[in-house]
Amino acid sequence: MAVNLQAPEPSQLLAIEGVLLGVAEAQIRKPGRKDLTVVQIAPGASVAGVFTRNRFCAAPVQVCREHLQTTGGHDMRALVVNTGCANAGTGAQGLIDARQTCVELASLLGVRPEQVLPFSTGVILEPMPMQRLLAGLPAAISAARSEGWADAAQAIMTTDTLPKAASLQVVIDGVTVTLSGISKGAGMIRPNMATMLGFIATDCAVSPEVLQQLTRAAADDSFNSITIDGDTSTNDSLIVIATGKSSLPPITRADSPQAKALQAALTTLAQRLAQAIVRDGEGATKFITVRVEGARSRDEARKVAYAVAHSPLVKTAFFASDPNLGRILAAVGYAGVDDLDVDGVDLYLDDVHVATSGGRHPDYREEDGQRVMRQAEITVRIVLGRGDVAATVWTCDLSHDYVSINADYRS
Amino acid sequence: MAVNLQAPEPSQLLAIEGVLLGVAEAQIRKPGRKDLTVVQIAPGASVAGVFTRNRFCAAPVQVCREHLQTTGGHDMRALVVNTGCANAGTGAQGLIDARQTCVELASLLGVRPEQVLPFSTGVILEPMPMQRLLAGLPAAISAARSEGWADAAQAIMTTDTLPKAASLQVVIDGVTVTLSGISKGAGMIRPNMATMLGFIATDCAVSPEVLQQLTRAAADDSFNSITIDGDTSTNDSLIVIATGKSSLPPITRADSPQAKALQAALTTLAQRLAQAIVRDGEGATKFITVRVEGARSRDEARKVAYAVAHSPLVKTAFFASDPNLGRILAAVGYAGVDDLDVDGVDLYLDDVHVATSGGRHPDYREEDGQRVMRQAEITVRIVLGRGDVAATVWTCDLSHDYVSINADYRS
Repeated sequence: MAVNLQAPEPSQLLAIEGVLLGVAEAQIRKPGRKDLTVVQIAPGASVAGVFTRNRFCAAPVQVCREHLQTTGGHDMRALVVNTGCANAGTGAQGLIDARQTCVELASLLGVRPEQVLPFSTGVILEPMPMQRLLAGLPAAISAARSEGWADAAQAIMTTDTLPKAASLQVVIDGVTVTLSGISKGAGMIRPNMATMLGFIATDCAVSPEVLQQLTRAAADDSFNSITIDGDTSTNDSLIVIATGKSSLPPITRADSPQAKALQAALTTLAQRLAQAIVRDGEGATKFITVRVEGARSRDEARKVAYAVAHSPLVKTAFFASDPNLGRILAAVGYAGVDDLDVDGVDLYLDDVHVATSGGRHPDYREEDGQRVMRQAEITVRIVLGRGDVAATVWTCDLSHDYVSINADYRS
Repeated sequence: MAVNLQAPEPSQLLAIEGVLLGVAEAQIRKPGRKDLTVVQIAPGASVAGVFTRNRFCAAPVQVCREHLQTTGGHDMRALVVNTGCANAGTGAQGLIDARQTCVELASLLGVRPEQVLPFSTGVILEPMPMQRLLAGLPAAISAARSEGWADAAQAIMTTDTLPKAASLQVVIDGVTVTLSGISKGAGMIRPNMATMLGFIATDCAVSPEVLQQLTRAAADDSFNSITIDGDTSTNDSLIVIATGKSSLPPITRADSPQAKALQAALTTLAQRLAQAIVRDGEGATKFITVRVEGARSRDEARKVAYAVAHSPLVKTAFFASDPNLGRILAAVGYAGVDDLDVDGVDLYLDDVHVATSGGRHPDYREEDGQRVMRQAEITVRIVLGRGDVAATVWTCDLSHDYVSINADYRS
């Protein structure tokens, strides 16, 4: 069902010096499924992260925040990721379990527990099957290899139909720098954070403070600009690792040309991984770009874009390829821009000018709207006519399969 | 598909002295369907209204606001309602059409145009078929009768599967006062205003100012406390008519015991009509009451209730009768209560204590959750433990039929 998305060719995923990935079957999710991933990081790397703002954030998210605070993002040595159980809504025991996982993995790797970051994804409100998780760690450690990106992309999936991974290279000051990343998520997707899980590594050397700034900015323009169903997850995490193995001198200032070049590459990769999540959105048959222009502020532009992207009526109209475009205007109208003058709003569907001056554009013809609505990829462009700020959000349609997938998730 | 909802018995709908209702087939919607309703009001009635806050509000809503402002709600003489075309997103022509409708009906009835209120519901962004609408008016006028409530409830339907109407009587100062009302709506339903259309009449005499206060309060606790899909319509309107035909002296103070008694009756009737909309929600198989207690403010309580009531993941879990109750906690967590201490939150499903102290309640058993989830009516009770304010929101589940209905609405 995924929209213009294919499983990545393992050969196109580039190794990052200083990063080894191994997966194992811990029988947390279901038999015959790799569900445990361990990422080993060479000494001296910087790590940055952004996490869900859900108040019911999962135990591993809390432990990640603690460990990154303790270490300042210096010299993190491992990530451990399980699917099948989110370890969220698990109270005090959940925190004990997440910490215990770090202690065990640290002991096996000969590092300190605070050098380990734990991640979980799956059903909420269920206790973590700790015995199986811990029993699986040695296998995931010994499977570690630098070519493990494709395996890891597969092992972190839940309702995803396809693994999501990408690599890119960029030349900075004559040095070729490499970035690779994986992501997962198909439902419970909206900003703050939008992905369930995203992991990106680069061989650049970057100070933890600068890496955190680059990560936040990349997340805002990628994972924090997508929505599938408007549900902000309890576990969303994006982690960026900079191993420092490249010959490029360390990046220690966020306003340096090197940082800007890395920012551009990081944002591009993050967008690719975030859009892959939307393309594989639960039940998705269409990939929709909602672009709002002419706003007075970014906040206003995003409010309007998300109102449109979240509207079940708009999303079912896309599923039906039905140019019932008044639904988009209705969503613009209730987005919360209190002094919006609807007579100044223009609506375009790709190249088709649909609405102007509070009504249908005089040249609009139903067959033109119909033609665009039949496409697998559609850009909705809303020009508010109030200012010069724009924002883009990516989403998918709402189909029968979304209901089926979420009604049957646990069965 | 409607949940515990039946078409009202015409004999149980009570006439309101001073109100006549007539319907006709104007062929705006589809052949063989009554789609035009005219409500005639005897001289001297007060009328109050609350309307959608959608900035793309429909032309008839704008005209209603103008006419109520011009008359001060005094001596309104007719309502005219069509289905099939919303006259929304229709620009300047839409306003001309809505005004023309009032002019024509006023001329036929021998009243002034500003004594007429127009209402439309149906597809957005389509021009109003004025010729057919105007041609239908004489038939709707001559069909007028005081027993017309059931016919009118039927004629204002769009995707509704059942007409919605109710009557009640209350004794104030020894005088029996009667209220009757109808409503319609099944999709594009959320607060501000929540119903597509609601019309209530009473034989009480009430000053327009007091009637407006009573109407606003009744709307907040009824139509503004329901949601089906979170889409605020362009056309939502609630109108309350007080004909003054009862022998009860006029109510001219909102803080009088008589006003309070009428407020209680009006709110009860409005809740019944609003809940009927949820019970007949597009594709609904469950009727869900979301009650949030222990909040610091009504705004906070409503934020949490609506986050839960709008979550597609929560709604599909109800459809599946799947006690995947972590999804409710996740929605509470992202509702926007920034300093929420999740350890203080308790979650109940009817009588079953599901979660406490940030995790599953020690006595919770899956089979207890399963038992409640299988019911057609379920109360989700969330106790925030932060204050003493409560709010209630009514909603339904998200089913395959919701997608089918909205994907196929125009075809």
